[in-house]
Amino acid sequence: MKPVNGYVKPLLTDLYELTMAYAYFNADRHEDFAVFDLFFRKNPFGGEFTIFAGLSEALKFLQDYHFEDDHIDYICEQLPQCSDKFRSWLKGLDCSRVKMNSLREGDLAFPRIPMMRVEGPLGICQLLESTLLNLVAYPSLIATNAMRMRLAAGKDKKLIEFGMRRAQGPDGAVSASRYSYLGGFDGTSNMMAGYLFGMPVSGTQAHSYISSYTSIDNISEKTIDDPDGNKHEFIQDALKYRDELGFNNTNDGELAAFIAYAHAFPSGFLALVDTYDTLDSGIPNFLCVSLALKEAGYDPVGIRLDSGDLSHLSKRTREMFKEVGAKYNNDFANLKIVASNEINEETLRSLNQQGHEIDIFGIGTHLVTCQKDPSLGCVYKLVQVRDEPKIKLSEDIAKMTFPGRKEAYRLYGEKGYPLLDLMIVVGEEKPQEGKRVLCCHPFEEAKRTYVIPSKVVPLHNIVWEGKPQHESTPADEIREFAMRQVDSLRKDHKRPLNPTPYKVSLSEKLFKFVHEMWRKEAPIREMR
Amino acid sequence: MKPVNGYVKPLLTDLYELTMAYAYFNADRHEDFAVFDLFFRKNPFGGEFTIFAGLSEALKFLQDYHFEDDHIDYICEQLPQCSDKFRSWLKGLDCSRVKMNSLREGDLAFPRIPMMRVEGPLGICQLLESTLLNLVAYPSLIATNAMRMRLAAGKDKKLIEFGMRRAQGPDGAVSASRYSYLGGFDGTSNMMAGYLFGMPVSGTQAHSYISSYTSIDNISEKTIDDPDGNKHEFIQDALKYRDELGFNNTNDGELAAFIAYAHAFPSGFLALVDTYDTLDSGIPNFLCVSLALKEAGYDPVGIRLDSGDLSHLSKRTREMFKEVGAKYNNDFANLKIVASNEINEETLRSLNQQGHEIDIFGIGTHLVTCQKDPSLGCVYKLVQVRDEPKIKLSEDIAKMTFPGRKEAYRLYGEKGYPLLDLMIVVGEEKPQEGKRVLCCHPFEEAKRTYVIPSKVVPLHNIVWEGKPQHESTPADEIREFAMRQVDSLRKDHKRPLNPTPYKVSLSEKLFKFVHEMWRKEAPIREMR
Repeated sequence: MKPVNGYVKPLLTDLYELTMAYAYFNADRHEDFAVFDLFFRKNPFGGEFTIFAGLSEALKFLQDYHFEDDHIDYICEQLPQCSDKFRSWLKGLDCSRVKMNSLREGDLAFPRIPMMRVEGPLGICQLLESTLLNLVAYPSLIATNAMRMRLAAGKDKKLIEFGMRRAQGPDGAVSASRYSYLGGFDGTSNMMAGYLFGMPVSGTQAHSYISSYTSIDNISEKTIDDPDGNKHEFIQDALKYRDELGFNNTNDGELAAFIAYAHAFPSGFLALVDTYDTLDSGIPNFLCVSLALKEAGYDPVGIRLDSGDLSHLSKRTREMFKEVGAKYNNDFANLKIVASNEINEETLRSLNQQGHEIDIFGIGTHLVTCQKDPSLGCVYKLVQVRDEPKIKLSEDIAKMTFPGRKEAYRLYGEKGYPLLDLMIVVGEEKPQEGKRVLCCHPFEEAKRTYVIPSKVVPLHNIVWEGKPQHESTPADEIREFAMRQVDSLRKDHKRPLNPTPYKVSLSEKLFKFVHEMWRKEAPIREMR
Repeated sequence: MKPVNGYVKPLLTDLYELTMAYAYFNADRHEDFAVFDLFFRKNPFGGEFTIFAGLSEALKFLQDYHFEDDHIDYICEQLPQCSDKFRSWLKGLDCSRVKMNSLREGDLAFPRIPMMRVEGPLGICQLLESTLLNLVAYPSLIATNAMRMRLAAGKDKKLIEFGMRRAQGPDGAVSASRYSYLGGFDGTSNMMAGYLFGMPVSGTQAHSYISSYTSIDNISEKTIDDPDGNKHEFIQDALKYRDELGFNNTNDGELAAFIAYAHAFPSGFLALVDTYDTLDSGIPNFLCVSLALKEAGYDPVGIRLDSGDLSHLSKRTREMFKEVGAKYNNDFANLKIVASNEINEETLRSLNQQGHEIDIFGIGTHLVTCQKDPSLGCVYKLVQVRDEPKIKLSEDIAKMTFPGRKEAYRLYGEKGYPLLDLMIVVGEEKPQEGKRVLCCHPFEEAKRTYVIPSKVVPLHNIVWEGKPQHESTPADEIREFAMRQVDSLRKDHKRPLNPTPYKVSLSEKLFKFVHEMWRKEAPIREMR
């Protein structure tokens, strides 16, 4: 059986969910029909879009929802007031009467549009809050971060997630690999993630490997077999090329390390070249070993830069590859250049401006910890109990919630771009292709737009009704879908600096309903 | 059995650890004796100290180290070059020949002093790199963050970790609870963490609970039993006090929610008061219900503020508590005030400057994601192979490594403060109490100090030699130890702004050895 994170159980919740559940139970309200919206209020990273992720884990959580006896004992220790009836209730609890509508995993998510709408008995729906928030927020954040890096790097580059050592715990590492792949990365260095989710895994050596060799004498095996089994004088050949090319200042330990590594992986020779001196030692040593490999019938792969001026070093490296390729009439000009070392979105953009010859980026810390914005502020708000819509008031208008059961549609314009997302009351007339619809700004009543959509896509799908409502979608399909969605978005919404906000609108009916309720519920202060 | 994170297995590693291991294996060097240091180069959060944490998890990882067959199959799929012999080697691999010295969990850690020194066969020690880094870095980061918040809040305040929903994944949440407790917090809202590690858990209600009630009519149960089983007219009493106190502008739904909650938890009544209007509705409603509770023989606990000006609101709340306490001649003046809402280290300091009446802080996002510095840059560097010391050169002097097997001592001065940490070569004469020792700056040869230590504490202890070398330490003990260590540190090292750096020094022998090796190994460039 594949390993799972054993922490993801109903007990992975905040105590207050249980105290609330007990208070509802005690007042006999735990069976009241309730509706909660899970959403965020602000896109991360100063951007204007977010990728929704984490759905399949959330559904797995619903599916397995069941309190273990030990966990119930622990809860009752914490809440000694609890009655035996509550204990039995917890024991029998599952998600068979819960219903969830959600965005499609990998879809674009925008502020205040529910990512999930959870409906069912108040008690159980309340208990789901903390865990669902935890399961959705970080995956969505990392997928968005990865997608921003993909946009910055361009489509023709390979992006590999390298962040396990800097991630916030083992699960942070595994989730980072999984959801950066969903957000458009090409692979990871994380073996566990590759094993669990099937994305490509890559990696070669660290500086310690290079420095573990001191000289050619460290190598016991002097020859290499070519693919047909014939022996080649591997070390002699490498030294011969070193003489021919006049590389007389290279580090011997590094040369030895490269030879030993190429011996182990003759078809996968990719060398870390900055241990001593990239241009005076690393690249020359790499070229000598590559020529010797080539002579034995193998194609070298390329090099990795892990320090210094990546623009300059990659350009100079490419020149050296071309020179040697021309001299020996081979394809070395196309060898791969991998770069790592504290790369973030800004570095990628700056490298593009300066020009570079990098084919593959390995990205760690900034990707996995989302350094620029390490949490997505997802919230889970009660919007209805029985037939009463509910709101959360706030002095900050941006924090007001939209009461009642809502659903949303993406309206596309003539040019094929999405124009806006429209939230409506569940049950009111849906927007239709070619039919004019009034779209209202959520807060400012003077800001309204008529839209005649060329295409209307419903955003919310029923994903759980006592059980999963669809087969789970393969990772590659979600990834392709996410990239298509981002592709479809107008360029100015994706601009790194001051992007145009993507509109989230309300139908006229919803607008009126919401504002009436705000006026009704908000207290009128007295000033003296 | 208590849940564990199933991801923490030998396969939770970067592919390059396995390619290197195979390259060593292929060159018959995997059995070479090797020494690795795990350390960081810069304290987080602009500070001058770090708390070392994660050791017990790391030891558990070593203890269980064993590749499952499925995982070996996966590795061999990824590395089709691998021989059957390598496969068998992986199959038989464990940490029985590994030795680890480390700082004590909860101890102060400073830049470049190894947190761990790992020794043993090169192959297995290499494979441990990524996982050990992952298991140590985030725990140390979060413990340090928590300790900084503890210093900012002061010793007499309670600090509760509230961050599950914003943490980077389930494991991020559980680790945040565990290691913020280690770093001086008093508890968490996370039930799973409480269950696993035994720290106190707290929590009451969310805004949704309050807004789920519309009016007093929502309450079916009008009475409450006092501790002796006598019935009291709970609702009537609350309304009576509302009249008496002239609170005629409070929200009825909120009053109902408080009554229902107090009914469920009569001895644990703590109310969230900012759903409608803190001073005009929340506190008045809380006071009415508290007086009614008191009449039924229960002591209310207090309130939670989750928005607005926490300094002003807490002071005004305390005044109202005192007024009502005086009027009814009870102890309401001492009711607890809890505050939450995006609190970070700076908020805590600023609140102290402005004055406040908060007793307990609930801290989430900034604590658990370590927003200010979301990763601790731990590295794992090869410092010796067989009897050859190894270094990692870098153009950035701060990134140079210190070769060879080293150990460290904390030297205390007359006043009881630690003066500096001294690294020496393993085997050289240890520093001794009352005996003058020369301590050299690691990089600048002109900076040297004589120290006559009043006390000498060895920092590195053998914690693993084929098996754990000590019983595991209870969490509370580690927490007390960590707080004592930080207490012992001179105040200026803990100053929030521009703290004085704590000195990390080398013995003269180590200094000479290191600098000689740097000179020997660093390439001399040619300029033309």
